[in-house]
Formats: sequence, structure tokens, C-alpha cells
Amino acid sequence: MPFRFQIEARDGAARAGRLFTPHGEVQTPVFMPVGTVATVKGVPQDVLEELGVEILLNNTYHLYLRPGVEAIRGLGGVQKFMAWDRPILTDSGGFQVFSLSDLRKVTEEGVAFRSHLDGSSHFFSPESAVAAQIGLGADIIMAFDECTEHPAEYARTKSSMEMTLRWAARSKKYFDEHRNEVVWFKQDTPAPAKGGLGRGTPAPVPGQTQTLFGIVQGGMFPDLRRESAERTVELDFPGYAIGGLSVGEPRPMTYEMVNAAIRFLPENKPRYLMGVGTPEEIVHYVAGGIDMMDCVLPTRAARHGLLFTSEGRLTIKNARFATDEGPLDPNCGCKVCTRYSRAYLRHLYAANELLAQTLNTIHNLAYYLDTMRRVRQAIILGDLASFLSGVQPPHVSLP
Amino acid sequence: MPFRFQIEARDGAARAGRLFTPHGEVQTPVFMPVGTVATVKGVPQDVLEELGVEILLNNTYHLYLRPGVEAIRGLGGVQKFMAWDRPILTDSGGFQVFSLSDLRKVTEEGVAFRSHLDGSSHFFSPESAVAAQIGLGADIIMAFDECTEHPAEYARTKSSMEMTLRWAARSKKYFDEHRNEVVWFKQDTPAPAKGGLGRGTPAPVPGQTQTLFGIVQGGMFPDLRRESAERTVELDFPGYAIGGLSVGEPRPMTYEMVNAAIRFLPENKPRYLMGVGTPEEIVHYVAGGIDMMDCVLPTRAARHGLLFTSEGRLTIKNARFATDEGPLDPNCGCKVCTRYSRAYLRHLYAANELLAQTLNTIHNLAYYLDTMRRVRQAIILGDLASFLSGVQPPHVSLP
Repeated sequence: MPFRFQIEARDGAARAGRLFTPHGEVQTPVFMPVGTVATVKGVPQDVLEELGVEILLNNTYHLYLRPGVEAIRGLGGVQKFMAWDRPILTDSGGFQVFSLSDLRKVTEEGVAFRSHLDGSSHFFSPESAVAAQIGLGADIIMAFDECTEHPAEYARTKSSMEMTLRWAARSKKYFDEHRNEVVWFKQDTPAPAKGGLGRGTPAPVPGQTQTLFGIVQGGMFPDLRRESAERTVELDFPGYAIGGLSVGEPRPMTYEMVNAAIRFLPENKPRYLMGVGTPEEIVHYVAGGIDMMDCVLPTRAARHGLLFTSEGRLTIKNARFATDEGPLDPNCGCKVCTRYSRAYLRHLYAANELLAQTLNTIHNLAYYLDTMRRVRQAIILGDLASFLSGVQPPHVSLP
Repeated sequence: MPFRFQIEARDGAARAGRLFTPHGEVQTPVFMPVGTVATVKGVPQDVLEELGVEILLNNTYHLYLRPGVEAIRGLGGVQKFMAWDRPILTDSGGFQVFSLSDLRKVTEEGVAFRSHLDGSSHFFSPESAVAAQIGLGADIIMAFDECTEHPAEYARTKSSMEMTLRWAARSKKYFDEHRNEVVWFKQDTPAPAKGGLGRGTPAPVPGQTQTLFGIVQGGMFPDLRRESAERTVELDFPGYAIGGLSVGEPRPMTYEMVNAAIRFLPENKPRYLMGVGTPEEIVHYVAGGIDMMDCVLPTRAARHGLLFTSEGRLTIKNARFATDEGPLDPNCGCKVCTRYSRAYLRHLYAANELLAQTLNTIHNLAYYLDTMRRVRQAIILGDLASFLSGVQPPHVSLP
């Protein structure tokens, strides 16, 4: 099937829907775990499937550097490479290269940057960033944008936003000219039978290709967020992301900027808020009309022993857990909570054992995914207000 | 059921049998993965079950230091602590404390040693090492022995062997007086219903307790190996281990020492060769009459990217695997070989990703366990000679 977004239920501004992609369907609202270099750190792919993960995010910058775009293209694209036959989204690399503040130089043409791995020189333009994403072969790919630094003055933010708009047009033009070059693209011919490993990527339906989303910028200025949204929509993408947030601003400002942009995004297309947030926040962004989110928080926090539970946050290294025979979260049905005690998880973390990182990550992902399933169900039942009343407001300070 | 060993088939010196323990049956010959601090590094317990692991080894020294014997006893014993309801064997701590060559002092009474974690002072005697193992609560526990250093002169080896015999008698005496103190022991009363986590230890049958094995020493002298075996057998243990090998001696010498001891061990009791070996070696030790083995090799090698396959050893970081779409081992049915390519596993290792260690370990364990299942089947079919003809001799040099 070609890319399609179908809304199945609404409750206020919130929507429950379904994304159709060449590698399968995704129920929205959706939280996408981050698999930076084609792995969610410490979690095997079959466990991600068991958790109900329907779409993963991979980072173009990291895969471009290692193992390289041509290597992955040569291996059949990133789904086949990582033996994950469900949808994948890649970011444009923009956020990562802008994070390399000492190693990059931005011009109208693009961004020159040095690898954080070996210092080697590279250049991303809208064209080359999209080309890299075509080579990687994710189902959903992103226009190349400038993530404006924070804080930034109005004039600087506006000119950065203008450049992102020009880059969005260049990204789209390049994509439209090369959209049939993804390794798994097949036009009007039966898909060939696949050999090799049993769990390889299923042959996609002929004629399918990738989908390019645009990204709204505009820093911390509501009128620029509006202008960026309206002018990105004029370029006509099948989906829109809100980028440039979670860059150090206070959380109420993040929320304000999302609100400033979202009302100017079309009702019938998916809206993706990049790089957020806590479990409380993602629920409130869904209530505001966001369909897709990604964040390193559940996975990174897990590796540092910070766990999200129905009873609040928990730092597993705390000595009081050393004799605690209970599960991490008594209300969680994940394979960690139904088998292991807090005392054992505390021991693994204190002993710096690999298994601590794996089990903690599995639980945190289960908590995020379960939260998303529950909010989706609340939307379908028209019960979102009562669901939200049981959730902390999104502006709580973080631990 | 009380501890029992039943031989079901013989082929030459080799035996296929079954160990019955309070936490379940173990088919022999068996390879026991090493779970040093109550975790096989990087592998969740449900995956160990899927692999068919029937018994794990835990290290008393490590668990004694962290989280501590009383902590584990208070949590119901090591099976319940680590949510593993199958049998566990603990070593005596002897090998680890003797490895701390700069941090220990040996007297007739026992070994004073300093923790490798924090330098704190501790003392293991035969009595306290057995007491620690009763506290931990494994199904099979080991007498406290002196692992003679290598190389050692005859006189030194003999006096060390004599002390191990005296320590074996003290270990047995202490165990006989305290054998009913294991936390899961129940005498002639119905086992209580268990609350708590779903995958906790099942209540053992009333009247069951732990089993203590003796350990043969004798360094690299065949006559001392024989004497140690005969005099340990006089002490009458339900099972016998051969210790003090894999301490730096050449492999043919290991093999010679095993042969020197094994013929003086009783036919009807299990024989456990400690701390060996490669896949080729374990098969040949089985052929010589060994029933149980443990080794860190498959798990430690995996974490360093050295993989055992039906086509030989493979160093996954090798650049030639970067474009290799094939499975790690085309003849292996494990969850790694049926899903992931060498190219992906090479990428994970090169990128220093956690998942590399997990997947590599799962495969190496699968290879060892599958090897043991195949040799067991060959014994049952009376086909061991033809099976061995397809295996490299055990004296091959290691990579």
C-alpha cells in the first residue's frame, strides 16, 4: 500500500488513527523507541516485537558514519540490515549535526561537520541528507532542517526558519526526483521471492516507496512557529513534524510552541513532535493533537537506573530496594515486572551487570508503550478527559 | 525428590544420565553456563530457559561479597533471588580466593583474603564456605578446597592435596550438621503456598535439601591425582569434582590429569570437571566419563567477539563480515542465527553496542548446549565413536 494516514476516532483535539507504510501499519498515537545505530540499546528485536513496538526511529547521522549508507543499501536497506520487518523512520541528521557545535559550519548550501568518531570531514545538504535516507531505506524520512539553537534572538530565529523552509523545498525536490531509488522499491512488477534469513524483510508491494515529512521550526516565537507551519504546509508534505524543541527551554515553553504550530497543521495528516518527552508529557501532547513522538528518555534513563512506574519514578540503585521482593511496578504486566524483584534489579544495577541495562530498558519501553495504548483506547472510548485527570500535568519538574 | 544420579546409557567410558535435584532434573552430560553474580552476563533468564539450560553455576565468592549471603537467604535463596526455578550449583569460593594471589593468606584453618571490590578483609574456612553456600541455597554445593598453583613442586602439591582432604572432611562434617538449614528446606510438612511474583521458585518437596560434592586435587602429578581421588571417595560424597585444572598447564596435561583421577571415581556417581573447556574438549571429556562441566569460555569469548560455529571459530569484528548477509552459523538453529546476519552482528560489535554482547553470548551458549545434546544423543545411540570422528582432537591449540 502507498503511505496513508487514517483517523479512526477523535476526542477533542486528540486523534486515534493508523499509519499505513510499506512495511506495515502503525497505530497512532505512537511512541517510537530510538534505535540510534539500528539497535535499541540492549534489547533484541524479538523483545521489541513482544513489547508491541510498531515503528522504530534510527539516526541517519550515526548510520551514515557507521556502517555507512552504501553498506546498508547493499544489505537491502535498514529493515533487512537490522532484521526488523516493521516500519522504521529516520531523522534527517540535522539535529545531530547541530549538536556538534564545535565541529560544524552552516552555510546556505548545507552543513560541514566533523565526525565525532574520528574527526573526518563530511557535508550534509538537503539533497545529500535525503539521499542518505533514500540509501538507508526507512519507510518515513525527514526533510533536512536547521535546528535553531536556544536561546536565539528573533531575527536570527527568523532567518534560520527561512533557511529551513528553503531546505525543505530542496529536500522535497530531491526526494521527488529520486523517490524510486530506495532499494526495496518495485514498480508494477511482482516482488521477487526472498532468499536468505528466515526473518528478513518481507517483499514490499510493488510501486511502494518512502514518504518524506516536512519539519516546522521557528524557535521560541509563536508567530514564527505559525509562519513556519503555514509555509511548510504550502510545500505539501504527507506529514509534518515539529522540530527544534527540547533544546534546553523550560517545558511550559515547549508546550506553548507546540500549540502555536499545531493549529496550522492540516487535520488529515500525521503530526510528529520530535524528541519528547516524559510519560506525562507525551499524554498531554496527544491530547493536543500530536500523533507521533520519539525520545531517548525511556531508554537512556533506564541505562542510568531511572525507571518509570505507575507509582512514579524510581531510582533502582537506592539501598532501600536491596531487600524489596516486590516487582518494579505492581501494575505492569511486562516480562520484567512479572518475573524479577526490585531486589534483584537493584543487585544487577549495583554490580554494573549488562542485564540491568537490558531489563531496565525493557520495562521503561513497556511503560511508555502501555501509556500510549491506554491513551489511544481512551480516545476511542471518548474518555480522554477522565484519563487525563489521572495523569500529572505536563509541567511537573523532572527528577 | 532427594538427590539422585541415574545412568541411562553408556558408550565406552561415556555415560548419559540424569541428575535429580530439589529444583528439577538435569540431563547429563551437561554444560553449566556460568552466572557469576546470579546472572549470565547479558542474557535474561527466559532466554536461558529457551536455550534449554537446565542448571546454572553461580560463584560463591562474588555473591558473598555482593549482595551478600544473608541478603540472598533473606530473599528466599539464590533461585528465588534470580527468578530461576531450575537447579543451581555454587562453587566453594576456593578457586576465586586462590586467584587473588596478592590479597590472600592460607593457613590450615582457611584463607584470609581481601575483597577485589573494596579491599575489605574476609576469611573462608571449610566451615564458613559451606555455611555461605547453605545460605545461598544452591541445589549442589562444593567442598572448600585449595586450588594448587601451577607450576608447583611434588612436595608442595602433596601437602596442598593433603590439606584439601582435611578441608573436605571438615566441609562434610559442617554440612552434615547444618544440611537442613537451607532456606527452602522443609521436613515432612506440606510445602506452603507461595505468594509474590509469578515466576518464583516452586516450593520444593518436603525433606529435600542441598547436596555436597567433594573435589579432587593433586596438581599435575598422576599419582597424587589417584591418591586424592581414592581418599576423597573414602569420605563418601554423592558426587565428585576434579578441580585445580585449567590453571595454565598445557591441554594434554589437563587431559592426562583427568584420566589419572577419573578411573578411581565411582561408576555410579556424577563426575564434574571444573572450569573446562573448548567445544572440542568438552566432547572428549564426556567420552572419558565426565558428566558435568562449566566454563566461562563461551560467555567471555562472546563478549570479546569470538564465536564458536560448526565451521570453526570466527572473530566477528573482522572486516570481511561487514557485507556478509549470511547467518553466523548456517547449521545453528538459535534465535541469533535464524534472524541476524553476520554483517549486522559485525556492526553491533564494531559500534560497541550492548546488543552485540547479548546476541553473541546467546549463540555461543546455544552452540555449547547443542554440542552437549548431540553427544548425549550419540551415547544413547551407541554411536559416540562415529560422533567423535567428526570432532577435532582436544589438543588443538586455541586461537
